[in-house]
Formats: sequence, structure tokens, C-alpha cells
Amino acid sequence: MLYGIVHSSQLDMNVYLKCFEDYADEVTVVTEDMPHDPSKITFALLWHPNIDFFERYPNVRLVASIAAGVDNIFACQSIDARVQVCRNRDPEQASIMSTFALWHIINHQRNFPLYLQQQRESRWQSLPMRAPSEVNIGVLGLGFLGEHIANDCQRLGFSVAGWRKHKKDIKNPNVPVYHGANQLSAFLCRTEVLICVLPLTEETRGILNRALFEQLKPNAYLIHIGRGGQLDAKDLLEALDEGFLCGASVDVFEEEPLPQTSPFWKHPNIIVTPHDASDVRPVAAVFNLIEEVRRFSAGIPLMNSIQSNIGY
Amino acid sequence: MLYGIVHSSQLDMNVYLKCFEDYADEVTVVTEDMPHDPSKITFALLWHPNIDFFERYPNVRLVASIAAGVDNIFACQSIDARVQVCRNRDPEQASIMSTFALWHIINHQRNFPLYLQQQRESRWQSLPMRAPSEVNIGVLGLGFLGEHIANDCQRLGFSVAGWRKHKKDIKNPNVPVYHGANQLSAFLCRTEVLICVLPLTEETRGILNRALFEQLKPNAYLIHIGRGGQLDAKDLLEALDEGFLCGASVDVFEEEPLPQTSPFWKHPNIIVTPHDASDVRPVAAVFNLIEEVRRFSAGIPLMNSIQSNIGY
Repeated sequence: MLYGIVHSSQLDMNVYLKCFEDYADEVTVVTEDMPHDPSKITFALLWHPNIDFFERYPNVRLVASIAAGVDNIFACQSIDARVQVCRNRDPEQASIMSTFALWHIINHQRNFPLYLQQQRESRWQSLPMRAPSEVNIGVLGLGFLGEHIANDCQRLGFSVAGWRKHKKDIKNPNVPVYHGANQLSAFLCRTEVLICVLPLTEETRGILNRALFEQLKPNAYLIHIGRGGQLDAKDLLEALDEGFLCGASVDVFEEEPLPQTSPFWKHPNIIVTPHDASDVRPVAAVFNLIEEVRRFSAGIPLMNSIQSNIGY
Repeated sequence: MLYGIVHSSQLDMNVYLKCFEDYADEVTVVTEDMPHDPSKITFALLWHPNIDFFERYPNVRLVASIAAGVDNIFACQSIDARVQVCRNRDPEQASIMSTFALWHIINHQRNFPLYLQQQRESRWQSLPMRAPSEVNIGVLGLGFLGEHIANDCQRLGFSVAGWRKHKKDIKNPNVPVYHGANQLSAFLCRTEVLICVLPLTEETRGILNRALFEQLKPNAYLIHIGRGGQLDAKDLLEALDEGFLCGASVDVFEEEPLPQTSPFWKHPNIIVTPHDASDVRPVAAVFNLIEEVRRFSAGIPLMNSIQSNIGY
């Protein structure tokens, strides 16, 4: 029998515990307040673990995050190189995130804020109509989620390109892929709507800054559904004030919940949502981890392991 | 040489005239205020023609509407059975209309009006998250535009079905097709988001009424991008008040512009847009008509002819 634990410093993890009980006979999973021997625990499903988690559970060798990002796990200073970290890949999460992004894309493409304003004024006024093919979308970060979003947008007729750190083509031949620092400028220059789905690493921290915004097409729009630490809030406000960005939708923030004092709340050209773009369903997170535990035990390659040296 | 005319009682048609001049050497096209012999005119590009148009141009045999709907032409009482009417099929129009519908679908799916309200109150509050697969969409009218919308929604992960008057399968095996009056109830019962893209005919006039709304799933949402004459405005208001519709997006109205006195403008659960869901690009309308004129002259079947007895 293999022993695991579900743990978070922020969330009630009982829904995950229940999924293990319902679906996994070959493992025993506990929460910290259940009786257990910490030395027997070898795997964990985590979300923002306590800082001493890996000291208290020194034999944990395999962990997964409940969501797509794993920065919350690497932020735990007690982690060491013997721990293998996995990400979640949930097609339903990708579908939820993609439609979330699409609302913001179309909101910009068709200027829905102005339609809503006109309705408040009982004003009947046709607006300029742009086809999806006339809107250049750039997906910054072409991982599992980014590729899904790029494909969805391309099939709807938008002009889509993607950027990723390392060279790797994607299946859709109609989405050109830029890669590496050298090609970032060429990617930004063609982009009107920038969608950030990058993982948070030391390289991506603060990447959404003035120097990046300045390279986008005129009247560009930012959709930020990556991680809060990637956005320089002051630079975004300046870019909006100076008019080289026409608006931004921001779902993730350096400090969450977004403080009441943030100027984002009342900014006329920023749409704030509460880190709600998407979520991995508990049952998907648990199924993924069970499969990874099986593979880990059998000594076969994991499905979605993270390279700890680069953080994604 | 073949002679044609561009004409509308409502719009300046000079942009269409210019397209003919730029792209069609083999025809001569005029507006009414240019010198011409009305008896020589054999084809016409029309939008809401004057009521006596066909009396003044008795030799016109082929006409096209500048947009997808042809009800504006059949409303012209001087038309007779010798006139062949064509519709437009513009893939770009379909793409524009589909993304317009998608904004309203996702607006409902993800409850964006509440996110916007929360932002106005500087309130950080996560909302329930439904996947596209959990939202049943019904496309009422599976013509060229309806099929495009159904396909787009299905590929994004929504659960989509369609209804059309006559039995005819569509290419996408993942979109079940209901047909005829007998299957309308079964279609409505499974539908949460109803998208109306029907043509306006005697049969579809007033079809969006209380009896139809009552058959939809609880908390249904209406997206009306067909024709104004299809919607019973009083029944819609009642359905919203009584709570068996939770909201509606209405782009088309019996009287346009929508009168200032309409209760739709200020209704908290109705989104009004000014008949802007999509438009056929002038160049697409002209290219289509030129090809139909060639076919008509050569005696080969037209691409997109209307059956005048049923009006679509």
C-alpha cells in the first residue's frame, strides 16, 4: 500500500480526499489532522504547502499541484531535488480557460463595452465591425493551455501566433510559432491582443513591462491569465495612460485578493477578475496524480513532470 | 454587355457601385441617379428596395440582397415570380456573426455581468465555474450561418444541437440535428442557450413567444440574431419577469432603430445591440452577385437561389 497526503495552507482539501477515497483503492490518503505516520507518506497533492512541509514529510518523493501552476510548490523552501513535481493537464480546464480568454478577445474585437455604454444611453449606433481575421492574437506561452487557446482562436478565424521559450512546433500548421528571446520582438510586433499564459519562473517574473508593451501593435490589448508576478502594475498603468495599450483584462495579481487600494479596480480600461479564468476539477487532479503514482512506482516515465531546474 | 443597378431606399449604395467598377469588366452597373435606360437593366443588388422598384425595372430577372436575409426584397410588393432572388453566403460574415454570438454565450456561461458588477464594487469574489460541456446550446435555424455557429461552439466544447425545418444532416457528427415541427419540443427541452438565426418567413413570424420559451431548460438564455419580426417582445418581457428566462441578448427588432420608448433599453437582463451582429462585406456581396449573373447568363444553376414560395 502506498501512502499519500492532501495538504494546503490555504484551501480545505477535503474534496480531494473524497476523490481519492472514491476512486483509488490501491492508495491510502490522509489529511494532516487524521492519524498517520509521516515517515510512510511518499506522495502528496498540494496547494501552497506550509513552508516546512518537506521537513515534516521527508520521504515524499512525488508531488502534484491541484492546478496548472507549480510555482506555489517551488516557493516552499523545504523542497529538495529528490522530490519529483508534476503539473496537471486537464483538457476541461483548458476548455474553460480558452472560452474565458475568448470573451475578452471578442469584447475587444467588437468593442462590447461601447455597446453596453450605448445601451445605458438608449443610443442606437452601429459600430465598426472587424472580422476575426483582422485581429492578430499572440499567445505568450505555448504550453498545454496556450496551445489549446491558440488552436481555438485560429479555428474561429483569428490570426494567431504563439511564442515559447524553446523551439517546438505545435500540431496546427496555421499557428506560426516564435521561440526564444531572439524572436520575442518579431512576435510582439505582429500582436494586437496579447494573451499571457506563461508559467512563473525567474525568467518570466516582471516580463509584462513597459519594454514589452511598447513593441506591440498600436492600440494593443493585454489579457493576463498567467501569474501575478509577471506583470509590472506600474508599467501597465503608464502604458494605458500613454495610450499604447488601449485596455487590459487582468485575472492574476502579485497580491491576491487584489488589495482595495489597487488603482486597477476603478480603472476604466482594466477589467479585473478574481483569479477565476479556470480551475482544474478536483477529480481530474486526483486522477492525474493516481496515474503518476502508478508510473512512479513502476519506474516508468511520468506523464507531466516538471524540470525543477527551470520551473516548468 | 449586361446592365445592372444597385439600389436601396435606406442606404448609400455607392460603395457597392465602386466594387462593381473595380472588379467586374463584363457588366455595367448604375445607380438610379446616373443616366440609364431602365428597360435594359436585368439584374440588381438591393437592400430594402422602393415598393415600386420592379414596376420601374420590368426586365430585372436576377436580384441579390446585400446581406444574408432576403425578407427585405420579398417585402417589395412589386416583385413577381419571374424574378430570381439570391442570398449571400459570405464565410467572413459567418465568422463575424459566430464570434458575436460566442461573446453572448460566454457572457452567460461565466456570468461576466456579475464579474463587472463586482469590479464596480471593488469586490474579490470567485464565482461558480461551468465548463463549456455543461452548457447546452441550441441553434434555431441551421442554414449557412447557423451551421457555422453550431460548429464553432461544438469545437469549443459546448454541447450543441440544431433545429431546422427540413431534414438535412450537417457535416459535423457531434451536432445532433432536430427537424420539423414534430421535433421542435425535443430540441427546446434540451436547450439552455437558444440562438435564433432563422430566416423571416410567414412560418417564423412570432416564433419566439411564450409557448416556445416555456419549453427551454430552466434559467434559459435567448440570443436573437435572426429577424425582429420573429420575437414577441411582450412575451419576452413576461418570460424574464416570471423567471423562466434569465436573460436575453437582442440584436434585431420589429422596428429599427429600436424606439426610445422600448422597455428593452433599460431592462437589467436584456442586452440590446443595434442590428450589428454581422454584415456581408460589400466586396463579398458584389463577387457573389457577379458569379450569379455569369451563371444566370450561361443557363447553369445559381449558387444560392431562394425558393420564392417558402422565402428562404
